[in-house]
Amino acid sequence: MAFRTDLALEAYELSGKQELTIEEEIINEFSLKKIYVSKTAAAATGKKEGSYWTFEAPQLRTQNEEWVEKAAKALSSVIRQFLIELDVKEDTPILIAGLGNWQITPDALGPEVCRKVFVTNHLFEVEPGAVEGGFRRTTALAPGVMGLTGMETASTLKGVINEYKPGAVIVIDALAARSASRLHTTVQLSSAGINPGAGVGNNRQEINSHLFGVPVIAIGIPTVVDAASITKDTLGYFEKTIKMKSSQDNRPSSLLMTKRSLEELNQNEAEPHEKNAYMGLIGGLSEEEQQELFKEILSPIGQNLIVTPKETDLYIKQASDMLAAALDQALHYPE
Amino acid sequence: MAFRTDLALEAYELSGKQELTIEEEIINEFSLKKIYVSKTAAAATGKKEGSYWTFEAPQLRTQNEEWVEKAAKALSSVIRQFLIELDVKEDTPILIAGLGNWQITPDALGPEVCRKVFVTNHLFEVEPGAVEGGFRRTTALAPGVMGLTGMETASTLKGVINEYKPGAVIVIDALAARSASRLHTTVQLSSAGINPGAGVGNNRQEINSHLFGVPVIAIGIPTVVDAASITKDTLGYFEKTIKMKSSQDNRPSSLLMTKRSLEELNQNEAEPHEKNAYMGLIGGLSEEEQQELFKEILSPIGQNLIVTPKETDLYIKQASDMLAAALDQALHYPE
Amino acid sequence: MAFRTDLALEAYELSGKQELTIEEEIINEFSLKKIYVSKTAAAATGKKEGSYWTFEAPQLRTQNEEWVEKAAKALSSVIRQFLIELDVKEDTPILIAGLGNWQITPDALGPEVCRKVFVTNHLFEVEPGAVEGGFRRTTALAPGVMGLTGMETASTLKGVINEYKPGAVIVIDALAARSASRLHTTVQLSSAGINPGAGVGNNRQEINSHLFGVPVIAIGIPTVVDAASITKDTLGYFEKTIKMKSSQDNRPSSLLMTKRSLEELNQNEAEPHEKNAYMGLIGGLSEEEQQELFKEILSPIGQNLIVTPKETDLYIKQASDMLAAALDQALHYPE
Amino acid sequence: MAFRTDLALEAYELSGKQELTIEEEIINEFSLKKIYVSKTAAAATGKKEGSYWTFEAPQLRTQNEEWVEKAAKALSSVIRQFLIELDVKEDTPILIAGLGNWQITPDALGPEVCRKVFVTNHLFEVEPGAVEGGFRRTTALAPGVMGLTGMETASTLKGVINEYKPGAVIVIDALAARSASRLHTTVQLSSAGINPGAGVGNNRQEINSHLFGVPVIAIGIPTVVDAASITKDTLGYFEKTIKMKSSQDNRPSSLLMTKRSLEELNQNEAEPHEKNAYMGLIGGLSEEEQQELFKEILSPIGQNLIVTPKETDLYIKQASDMLAAALDQALHYPE
Repeated sequence: MAFRTDLALEAYELSGKQELTIEEEIINEFSLKKIYVSKTAAAATGKKEGSYWTFEAPQLRTQNEEWVEKAAKALSSVIRQFLIELDVKEDTPILIAGLGNWQITPDALGPEVCRKVFVTNHLFEVEPGAVEGGFRRTTALAPGVMGLTGMETASTLKGVINEYKPGAVIVIDALAARSASRLHTTVQLSSAGINPGAGVGNNRQEINSHLFGVPVIAIGIPTVVDAASITKDTLGYFEKTIKMKSSQDNRPSSLLMTKRSLEELNQNEAEPHEKNAYMGLIGGLSEEEQQELFKEILSPIGQNLIVTPKETDLYIKQASDMLAAALDQALHYPE
Repeated sequence: MAFRTDLALEAYELSGKQELTIEEEIINEFSLKKIYVSKTAAAATGKKEGSYWTFEAPQLRTQNEEWVEKAAKALSSVIRQFLIELDVKEDTPILIAGLGNWQITPDALGPEVCRKVFVTNHLFEVEPGAVEGGFRRTTALAPGVMGLTGMETASTLKGVINEYKPGAVIVIDALAARSASRLHTTVQLSSAGINPGAGVGNNRQEINSHLFGVPVIAIGIPTVVDAASITKDTLGYFEKTIKMKSSQDNRPSSLLMTKRSLEELNQNEAEPHEKNAYMGLIGGLSEEEQQELFKEILSPIGQNLIVTPKETDLYIKQASDMLAAALDQALHYPE
Repeated sequence: MAFRTDLALEAYELSGKQELTIEEEIINEFSLKKIYVSKTAAAATGKKEGSYWTFEAPQLRTQNEEWVEKAAKALSSVIRQFLIELDVKEDTPILIAGLGNWQITPDALGPEVCRKVFVTNHLFEVEPGAVEGGFRRTTALAPGVMGLTGMETASTLKGVINEYKPGAVIVIDALAARSASRLHTTVQLSSAGINPGAGVGNNRQEINSHLFGVPVIAIGIPTVVDAASITKDTLGYFEKTIKMKSSQDNRPSSLLMTKRSLEELNQNEAEPHEKNAYMGLIGGLSEEEQQELFKEILSPIGQNLIVTPKETDLYIKQASDMLAAALDQALHYPE
Repeated sequence: MAFRTDLALEAYELSGKQELTIEEEIINEFSLKKIYVSKTAAAATGKKEGSYWTFEAPQLRTQNEEWVEKAAKALSSVIRQFLIELDVKEDTPILIAGLGNWQITPDALGPEVCRKVFVTNHLFEVEPGAVEGGFRRTTALAPGVMGLTGMETASTLKGVINEYKPGAVIVIDALAARSASRLHTTVQLSSAGINPGAGVGNNRQEINSHLFGVPVIAIGIPTVVDAASITKDTLGYFEKTIKMKSSQDNRPSSLLMTKRSLEELNQNEAEPHEKNAYMGLIGGLSEEEQQELFKEILSPIGQNLIVTPKETDLYIKQASDMLAAALDQALHYPE
């Protein structure tokens, strides 16, 4: 019933940050943040134990083809690192599972990636020349969603894995974000498995390495966000804007004359008494508490709408192009 | 640059209601609200002079096939009334123009309706038996969007109208709502024309009866909403919930134990001093002012995201099925 | 490498008819032909042992919605009969497997049926009220094609079956016909399994009851045909037309003044010496030999084109609507 | 009612070649054949007076991305030549009209090209920096098909042209071929206009420079072929194969042991008396007469099926990518 924090990085930022340690790297023009959720931290954050890496590419919002290629290249090196960390060898056969429903645009990320990645497993038999020298055996499956198959996605995949016995599984899924600014700008890699549909309130059987008996790498991109998160975001921008303008007349109409940068704005954090003046009762709550509160208010009356950007078709195309290219570059080592 | 209030009814509700008169009717299980914006009212509300009828079918949110048929039937009688009001005769040839981009799901309403309506004009020549007895001449065109055609939609249509000389034009478009609750639950009919792309900030040449020289009926269904509106909505629900619970402990976790109805909630409006306690500075603003404020804050930093429900594919299918069926029933009088 | 006769009925017609017995029934306005291929007949025809039922609905070529409903109803009773013959009980859980590639229109029949059938298995747990009284447990999976998954379809299904243990499997696939007149007018049901991709020359692991350990019902509709078959068909019509007109002047331009019925035409079969006069060397071959000859000529030079009707999108929509409706009516017994 | 020879080159080849002169050029690895149909030749061939250029790229059948780029580049220089021949200047505004129905895959070529070409007209006003230096004003419109719009495509375009006044119009359409080997391997450019739907028997108002008052360049790619043409093709291959093998035993099963090249085969033409022996009555007819005969036989009984290759979705994507790229390179001269 809870709206899931799909992104561990968001959980970290919301958690007060005491529980988790984070490492940051810069890969070309992109940022990579690595969080390891230990057993003890898992309890505190509600996240499963495991590695959570967050690759940030806000440039993708521009929908510029050039950034797609750059992001794919950088992400491919991140995926390689992650596979090494999980002890997956260069020639280990890998199944790529694309979760989601290809008929619902913002849920089609997984199936679209499956459609676009280079699968090689059958070529080793039927066209060995095409995969000579450095190609890994890859397979891909879009197992569908329970509403259309009647089956648990985890069980479907387990059956296929028992038959094909890949040495690792990469699970692709569209995620729910807690902040609209993360939509289609962030890629999360996790070793902790995934709960299909969890982001939108349908908890089902978990997909993880325990179930499958081989390493599972979940790769997700947030494509939807809920009304509670959007409201929390807006109030955050509101608070910082008012703080920044506090020396001036604060009538709405005079607030914003010029285009400001988001970075500049984010340096303004109001004091507790200011927050209270700006937002009353709401000002006394942390961001996480605000979000929980709005969710608790909106959900019972059916108003915690889950939404996706208007240009969802373009974003899903871009995200699946990028992710498929990154996987192709990460998984194969052609000479 | 402003985010348009596509729905006159919302403008009315936000305007303090002094400027406009509204008539309400019940048609089967649906509500119809008729607003006439006079010349003087036009200035006050920012809406063009003309009739604005709002057909409300919140039942469509259930995506139940049965409601689609019922709504289509009721809406068809509304469309017939509207045509009579504009003095469009039963045998006047009508062009149905479906604005929008069929590749962007929430913008595909117009093209999808064009694809689904029954067009008869050519049949009068090539298969007259199929349109004997009560069929009106109808034509349909999806003129595309400027980004893909390089042309003003208004001019494209004007050229076609000059060639075909229909006696009236029905323009279908996806709208932007100011409240998420209106998404896919409301149909607006207007005699005041339409500004393609205005809802999302791209003002262009207007489509109206003045330009075309024949009556123009704009029919729209809201498919997108912006972050500012979502925030305003959430704060409204927040205020009413706190008011309702004000006699109780107001810690977030204890607020909402049971599923409440939206109707019950909406009967709770806080007093000014309460609003101030709940929401500080924000509480001193009207809903309209809140929305404007959030827009002014979010737009310059590129965060006034325009969004559509996650299930946009299903909603667009339903809305275009419903609207095409309503038009087919409204425009023809087969014996 | 051979172009498969997907339809047993065609094999029967081409085989000289000695090997097989055929029973005919009329179901409403449609014909059902039942062939049982015994072990001995299997050798002679190249078909696997088993039951082959052919449901003929030439009315579907009209693309009239009314015929779709009538055909679905009649076909549902055929499917029920077939299940009884295979000893599948009314409450046996069934997996519906939709073979093919949803991105290649004439190959999308299976995935489209999967998308449209009513699956109930999960509802028994999450919404038991919806499946009370007479609903069978159904699941559905579109396992994709080897070129996109890297996996044998048979193995993928076997893995899922091991996990879910349905009591029977219905496999849906688009077939290749040997005659253009069968395209989208014929439904074949078979107990002998299916060889995915065989129709177009890609032999792969067979899908049958032996592999899965439960009854397998293959249901197919021909959506493609090759150039050799089209040529053979045309020459057949040519021969019969000339025969019919043989008492008249046989210059091409005078042959066909009026619209004739296909039935009338088919009553004209030329004598051997006439065939020789009409078609020379070709006239000395049986239809099956003609087809084999043309295939042998066209295939090595890459000209045995496999084609689908121009309106393939409409036909696939109609066929999947019809088949999904037939399955829904056949598999469930709501009170 | 006649099945149109969309390709002038085919008409030339079938006509006995006396009436027309043909010039051949090689452009990179592709062939370009230029036919000019004079007024007198027009009568003899049934083609309209004008230039017909045929660009041949059989390499496109391989669906190799590399050939798509090479063909686009070569074709762009052909289009430039053609515009020069029609006296269309480098800065003349051009409307690209994409005929056809985007819902019927083999008919979607025009709309797909419109969607993919670079249109600039609006940018001269809203974003002039993007079109500085060498960009031509281009607009694009997919006017739909009469069955969905109720309007003559020619009239729709005429209305838009009157409004926008481009200096030339490029009309894109999917064509019908008379030979399967031309499907998706040939691009025809013509100054003689186009008759929408003519290829499939629906004659309608012509689209040409006379109607629009500006030069019209029709660019088409064959995507469909009829059963009569396929049969004629097959019999041609049959005749040549038998001729080639005539010194050997001519039992079907022994005919073709090895993969032969099409080129080698085409050097074998049978003598009249041989044709008669091979094909009887049919052997006495020219290819064109054969095709007419089969059409006259098949059409009245509804069996002259119009078909498209099974992989139509892939071919249409490739053809529209190629054509849009060629147009982009041909129409703009960025510095």
